[in-house]
Amino acid sequence: MSPLPTDLEIAQQTPLKPIDDIAQRAGIAPEHLEHYGRHVAKVSLDAIKAKADQPAANYVLITAITPTPLGEGKTTTAVGLAQGLELLGKKTMLALRQPSMGPVFGIKGGAAGGGYSQVLPMESLNLHLTGDFHAVTAAHNLLAAMLDNHIYQGNALDIDPQRVSWRRVLDMNDRALRNVVVGLGAPEDGVPRQSGFDITAASEVMVILALATDLRDLRGRLGRIVVGYTHAGQPVTAEDLKAAGAMAVILKDALKPNLLQTTEHSPALIHAGPFGNIATGNSSVVADLLGSRCAEYLLTEAGFGSDMGGERFFNVKCRVSGLTPDAAVLVVTVRALKAHSGRYRIVAGKPLPAELLAENPDDVRAGADNLRKHIEIVRGFGVAPVVAINAFPSDHASEHAVIREIAEGLGARVAVSTHVAEGGKGALALAEAVMAACQDPTQFCPTYDLGDDLKTKLDKVARKVYGADRIELSSAARKQLKGFEALGYGQFPVVIAKTHLSLSSDPKRRGAPTGWTLPVRELRVAAGAGYVYAICGDMRTMPALGAHPSAEKIDLDEQGRVVGLF
Amino acid sequence: MSPLPTDLEIAQQTPLKPIDDIAQRAGIAPEHLEHYGRHVAKVSLDAIKAKADQPAANYVLITAITPTPLGEGKTTTAVGLAQGLELLGKKTMLALRQPSMGPVFGIKGGAAGGGYSQVLPMESLNLHLTGDFHAVTAAHNLLAAMLDNHIYQGNALDIDPQRVSWRRVLDMNDRALRNVVVGLGAPEDGVPRQSGFDITAASEVMVILALATDLRDLRGRLGRIVVGYTHAGQPVTAEDLKAAGAMAVILKDALKPNLLQTTEHSPALIHAGPFGNIATGNSSVVADLLGSRCAEYLLTEAGFGSDMGGERFFNVKCRVSGLTPDAAVLVVTVRALKAHSGRYRIVAGKPLPAELLAENPDDVRAGADNLRKHIEIVRGFGVAPVVAINAFPSDHASEHAVIREIAEGLGARVAVSTHVAEGGKGALALAEAVMAACQDPTQFCPTYDLGDDLKTKLDKVARKVYGADRIELSSAARKQLKGFEALGYGQFPVVIAKTHLSLSSDPKRRGAPTGWTLPVRELRVAAGAGYVYAICGDMRTMPALGAHPSAEKIDLDEQGRVVGLF
Repeated sequence: MSPLPTDLEIAQQTPLKPIDDIAQRAGIAPEHLEHYGRHVAKVSLDAIKAKADQPAANYVLITAITPTPLGEGKTTTAVGLAQGLELLGKKTMLALRQPSMGPVFGIKGGAAGGGYSQVLPMESLNLHLTGDFHAVTAAHNLLAAMLDNHIYQGNALDIDPQRVSWRRVLDMNDRALRNVVVGLGAPEDGVPRQSGFDITAASEVMVILALATDLRDLRGRLGRIVVGYTHAGQPVTAEDLKAAGAMAVILKDALKPNLLQTTEHSPALIHAGPFGNIATGNSSVVADLLGSRCAEYLLTEAGFGSDMGGERFFNVKCRVSGLTPDAAVLVVTVRALKAHSGRYRIVAGKPLPAELLAENPDDVRAGADNLRKHIEIVRGFGVAPVVAINAFPSDHASEHAVIREIAEGLGARVAVSTHVAEGGKGALALAEAVMAACQDPTQFCPTYDLGDDLKTKLDKVARKVYGADRIELSSAARKQLKGFEALGYGQFPVVIAKTHLSLSSDPKRRGAPTGWTLPVRELRVAAGAGYVYAICGDMRTMPALGAHPSAEKIDLDEQGRVVGLF
Repeated sequence: MSPLPTDLEIAQQTPLKPIDDIAQRAGIAPEHLEHYGRHVAKVSLDAIKAKADQPAANYVLITAITPTPLGEGKTTTAVGLAQGLELLGKKTMLALRQPSMGPVFGIKGGAAGGGYSQVLPMESLNLHLTGDFHAVTAAHNLLAAMLDNHIYQGNALDIDPQRVSWRRVLDMNDRALRNVVVGLGAPEDGVPRQSGFDITAASEVMVILALATDLRDLRGRLGRIVVGYTHAGQPVTAEDLKAAGAMAVILKDALKPNLLQTTEHSPALIHAGPFGNIATGNSSVVADLLGSRCAEYLLTEAGFGSDMGGERFFNVKCRVSGLTPDAAVLVVTVRALKAHSGRYRIVAGKPLPAELLAENPDDVRAGADNLRKHIEIVRGFGVAPVVAINAFPSDHASEHAVIREIAEGLGARVAVSTHVAEGGKGALALAEAVMAACQDPTQFCPTYDLGDDLKTKLDKVARKVYGADRIELSSAARKQLKGFEALGYGQFPVVIAKTHLSLSSDPKRRGAPTGWTLPVRELRVAAGAGYVYAICGDMRTMPALGAHPSAEKIDLDEQGRVVGLF
C-alpha cells in the first residue's frame, strides 16, 4: 500500500465544483444562496420554509465509542458514508460542526475529515470560513463589555460583581487568558474584578446559535442568558442589560448554515461548533431542519462518544428540532479497542506504541466491553446501531473479525469502511448497512422526561447511559439545584460535563466501568441555551499551546499557498 | 426644506446593483472577484497586475480642517464627490477605510457617509463586512498567545516579561480591558504579567494590512514586528517567535480589498482601518494601487485633519505606494469654523448649542485661521487644495461667502457641496473644482527626507506642518531615540500621536495656535509597519461605552430587519 498524500495535499489537488452546482444538486434555489467566494455559500433560512413540502430525510447520527485522545474519525466516516450513499444513487446531506480556529494553531489537526473523505475547501473550513465564530466572539464580548460598563456606570441593576458568571471569549488557545483581573488602571478604566476568557466554542452564545430554530428564537434565547446575580440573588439577564438586540444583529448572518462540498462533491452543511465537554457538542438545529428537506439521507455528527455528544443529541437537540433519528452509526477503530484493554497508552502528539500496531485480536477482544456498552446506549434510545469500523492500514483482518463477531453477536449491523484511503467506494458496505438500518422500526425514547426533577434527570443519564451506580451531589451542587428549581430552571434538560475519555468520570478508566459513582461538583445554568449543566471533574474551557505549537510550521510559500496546515 | 430620512432608512430603501455590475463598470474582471453575498466582493490582488497597463488615475486626497468631535463629513464628501464626478462622465473610484465595529455599539455613528452620499450595504459595512477586522484580531492575538506561551515554556529567547510591549486586541469598546493582569491561576495557566487590550483598529497588524504592497510584503512586515525586548535589551520579533507565517495565513484573504457601491452605484474599495491617533489613519495601499488603474479619478480619504491623517498620507503612505497625489480636498463646515473661534463648545452625543446655529458670519471669520493653516499645510506638500464646504441645512449664505472669500484670497479653489441632501448632483461644483485642480502642476514634496535623523523628522513635522515653535523630548524619549537609532530604526518615517482636535498638542486650543512647544513624552517603534511614533499627550487606544450605549437601541424587528443602527 503506497502512503497517502497528506490531507492538505489531497485538499489542494482536488478540483472543486462551483457551489451553485452543489446547491442545485441539493435542491436549494439560487435566491437562497449567499456566496462567500466560489466554493462556500450561506443558505437563507427561507429555504427551510420553501422546502417544507419535501419529504423528510432518513436522519442518521454519526457517533462513536469512547474515543482515544486521537479521535475515532467520526467526521471522515460521516463524509465517506455520504459519498458512499451518493454512489448508490441516494441524495445525501451532511450536517457537521464548524471546527474551531484556535486549536488549528495548537496540536490538533483539522476537523474536516481526512484523506479522500474531507470537507473542502479545507483551508476556509479550518480558518475563518464565513466568520460565524467571529460573530459569536463579538456578540459574547459585547455582552461582557455592557455588563462591566453597567457596573461602572452606577450599577442600577445592583449586580453583585462577585457573582458575575459571564466571562469573555476568544477563538484562540491562550492559557494566559484563563484567569485575569480586568478593570485595573484609573477610575475611568472600570471596576476591578477577577474573571477570565474561554475559547469561543465554549460560549453559551455558540450553543444558542446551534439550538435556535429561527431568528426570533435566537433573539429570545439571547435575552434569557443569565450573566450573574444581584446582591439579592436574582438572576441578571442579557435582556436586563439591553444587550440581546445588538447581539442578535451581530449574529443575524451567522444563523445561516454554510454550504460546502466533500472531496467527491457531496453537499455538506457546516454550522456552529459548541464545545463537546461543557456544551452540547452538536451542529446546528437549523442546518438539520434544512438538510432534512434536501436529501434522502441526512447525516449529522455529534462530538465524542455516544455517552457525550450522542446523549445530548438525543436528549437535548432532538427535543428542540422535533426531528427523530432513524439510525446511529457507531464509529470504532482497532486502536481504540486495543487501548480500552487498558494495555496501551495513547498520547496526542506522540507516535503510537509499536506493540499497539502489531496483529493482536486478543487485545481488541479485551477492550470490547466499551463497544458493547455503546451499542447498548444507542439501543437505549430506541435507535438501530450500525458499527462502522474505520479501517487503518495498520489494521489486521483478524482484528476486524473480532469486532464483527462482537457487534453481530449483539444483533448490530457492522461494516468495515476504507473511506479515508478510497473515498466513497470504500464506504459502500457501510452505506448499505445504514440504508438497511433505516428500515428498522424506531421507537425513539429519550432518557428522561422534561417533567422529571433535575436530580432525577442527572441520575437517569448517569445510570442508564453511563452505567454508574449512582450520582453524588456536593453540598454546593445541592444548594445550586435547590436555587435553580426555585428560579424555574427545573424543567430544563441537563448536560453532564464529564471527561470524554471514559464512560465514567475518571479519564483513566477504560472499557465499560461498573461500580462507580458520578460526583457532581457544581451545577450551572445556561438559561438562554436552555439547560442546566453539571460539572463532574476538571473541565478545561480554554485550551493552551504546547511547547512546539503547530503555528510555528504554518506559513505561505513563494506562490502565496498555505503550507504546514496539517 | 423637508427633513431627510435617517441614514438607515435611506440605506435600506436604496436598491443596490449586483456587485458584478459595479465591478464591470470599474473594469475588474469576473475572475478577480470573490463574492461575499450579493453586494460585496473581495478583489484578488492579481487584478493589480492584470491592469498594470492602464493609465494611472488622478489621485485626490480627501482631508479636512481640524475637526470638531462630530467630524467634518470627509467620508460623505468623498462619496458625494465620486458621484458628482460620475455625473460628469468621469470614471471614479473611492478608497476608504473600513469602519470599526466596536464603536458602532458606543456613541459613534457609522463611517459610511450619510444621507444620499453613503457607501452601501451600510449594515454589512458597519458590522462584520468580510471579516478583515476579525482576521486582524486573530492574527494579533495569536502572536500574543505565542509570546506568553514562549515565556511559559521556558523562555528560550530570554524575553524580559517587564518589557513586553505587545498587548491583545478586540474590536470592542471595553474599558474594563484597558489594564488587566493575565496568567493568573495555577502554574499551568501561564506566567502572571500586567498587560491590556487595545481596540483592533489600534493594532500594528492593522497598519501592516494597510501598508503592505502585496502578500510577500505583508509576510515580511509581520515578521519584523517587535513584541518586546530580551533582558539584554535586544528586540524580539514575531519572526523570532515563529508566529509570522501563521499570522500571514490568517490574513491572506484580508489583504484583498472589498468592493462595495455608493447610493448612486459608484464603486468603492473599503479596506483596512488603522486608528487615526497612534497609527496611520489611512486606508490600504493595495486598494489605492488597484483603484488607481480602475478609474480616471481615485479619491482616497485620510483620518482627521490634514495635520493628522493627511500628513501621514503624504509622508508615510505615498512613500510606500509610490503614488503621488494630484490634488487635495479640504472639507470644512460652518459649525467647525465657528467652534474654532473659541466661542462654542461641541460635545459628541449632545445637541449643538442653539447660538451656534444662528446666522453669524463673524464667528466663521473668527475661526478662519484654522482653514488658512490647513490650506498652507496642503500647499506645503506641493499639492493644490480644493476647499469643500460640506453644507448643512442650518448654514447661511453669508457664512459660506466668508469661507469662499478666505479660500479664494489664498488662491484656493472652493465649492459648496450639498451631497448629503442631494447626492452627486449636489457635488457638481466640487467635482468641477477638483477636475480643474488636477490640471495644476504638482511638485509633491514630503516634509522630511528618510535620511534625516529621527529628531529632525519630528521637528520638521512639528514646525512645518503643525506650526509649533519647537519640540521638546522628555528624558525617556531622548533615551528611546538613542536606542532606536542604535537598533537601525533611524531611517523610518515618523508618526506623531497628538490630539486631532487642535493643530497643537492641546485639544483645547482652537484656530491655528502659535508660540507653542510640542512635548514628546515617549517614543515607540512599529518596526513591522515601519515607523517610529511619538506620544504627545494622552492617547486612548481602547474606547469605552457611555452611560447609554447605542447598543441598547439596536435590535431586529418582527421581520428580522435591523433597527436602531444610526
